Amino acid sequence: MSELPKKAVILLSGGLDSATTLACARSDGFQCYALSFDYGQRHRAELDAAQRVARSLGVEQHRTLNLDLGVLGGSALTDMSIDVPDHASEGIPVTYVPARNTVFLSYALAWAEILQADDIYIGVNAVDYSGYPDCRPEYIKAYTTMANLATKVGVEGHKIQIHTPLIDLTKAEIIRLGTEKGVDYSQTVSCYAADQEGKACGVCDSCRLRARGFEEAAMPDPTYYQAG
Amino acid sequence: MSELPKKAVILLSGGLDSATTLACARSDGFQCYALSFDYGQRHRAELDAAQRVARSLGVEQHRTLNLDLGVLGGSALTDMSIDVPDHASEGIPVTYVPARNTVFLSYALAWAEILQADDIYIGVNAVDYSGYPDCRPEYIKAYTTMANLATKVGVEGHKIQIHTPLIDLTKAEIIRLGTEKGVDYSQTVSCYAADQEGKACGVCDSCRLRARGFEEAAMPDPTYYQAG
Repeated sequence: MSELPKKAVILLSGGLDSATTLACARSDGFQCYALSFDYGQRHRAELDAAQRVARSLGVEQHRTLNLDLGVLGGSALTDMSIDVPDHASEGIPVTYVPARNTVFLSYALAWAEILQADDIYIGVNAVDYSGYPDCRPEYIKAYTTMANLATKVGVEGHKIQIHTPLIDLTKAEIIRLGTEKGVDYSQTVSCYAADQEGKACGVCDSCRLRARGFEEAAMPDPTYYQAG
Repeated sequence: MSELPKKAVILLSGGLDSATTLACARSDGFQCYALSFDYGQRHRAELDAAQRVARSLGVEQHRTLNLDLGVLGGSALTDMSIDVPDHASEGIPVTYVPARNTVFLSYALAWAEILQADDIYIGVNAVDYSGYPDCRPEYIKAYTTMANLATKVGVEGHKIQIHTPLIDLTKAEIIRLGTEKGVDYSQTVSCYAADQEGKACGVCDSCRLRARGFEEAAMPDPTYYQAG
């Protein structure tokens, strides 16, 4: 007697980390429901990338939700009046979006409950986490405890699990893992200042981190960079 | 030397409970930032009520965010294809919206962080809670722990507090409390099936609970009911 594959909700931004995370969920045997957010990013390139990645890794469904997060302001990634920094800075970066992972995980939880899925995947990373408080293991643990008290699923004896397959990996290790699992990184966009076609600037924090990852993994960098 | 009043974010639905909660925050001395959500409710009457209440209780700002929660489906309150029940049912009701308070609190947390507010008010109630898992004290406690790990505010030594002034009160006690604090309950809408003008059906679970509250408080019920 064969069981139906279990469902999982995967947060998919279109970047390198979340594409790898989706590939992990797939290789863990889950039927994948990918969730992306349109929250006033500077460009649509990231959402286009999410669509390419979802299609090429064969998800069951891919939904993109509009968030009003940008209306509240408060970060360079959503507030056009703050410049994106092109160098690493001390402490928590201005590219921090308030409560972002908390909002994202809450929608993932809502969808998981509707799908009767117990599993959520998020590509947070504590090694290269650049000072975002909501990428730390203790945050994920506290979120899981809350989620199991919040929901019908949790109450009725299922157990919500939040999977963070990248949490202890360096960027190079993430790239090696995803490559093994069939991720085509040329489809992903990590740059804070990508152009309309998704070409990367090559100089922002995110671009540098990514480029160094390919270098350290001793793999060719398939990123499309802007000319110049 | 006088300090500036502290800011608080208050979740305001336009119902009886959240109006009372806002009045509590005001009487606790906070500068009030009220947050409402448009998430595909069956009617706009509740949002109109939120606006009336916010104005009459003198909030500093009132924001209404559009949520895509309805797109995910899964509840009678957002899914037009499920009938709203007019009688109490066993266990968790179909009017349950998946992860609703988790999503709402996450936006409140995001706004609190932007405002540099440490205080959030939510009108959950464990007595008349009708089986919603995310109205229980243990849920709020777990949310608070998570919130303090999630945010810049939490990380930098501030302490997020989630205030639940109604959590142990009966509906009658809530009505007495709010009346003392100046809430005009004729401005609020609790009905699951209110008409365009906000007039209540008088027969749904929410209407019955509310009417019984005024009865038990021995106060005149100022609710506008539909004719018939």
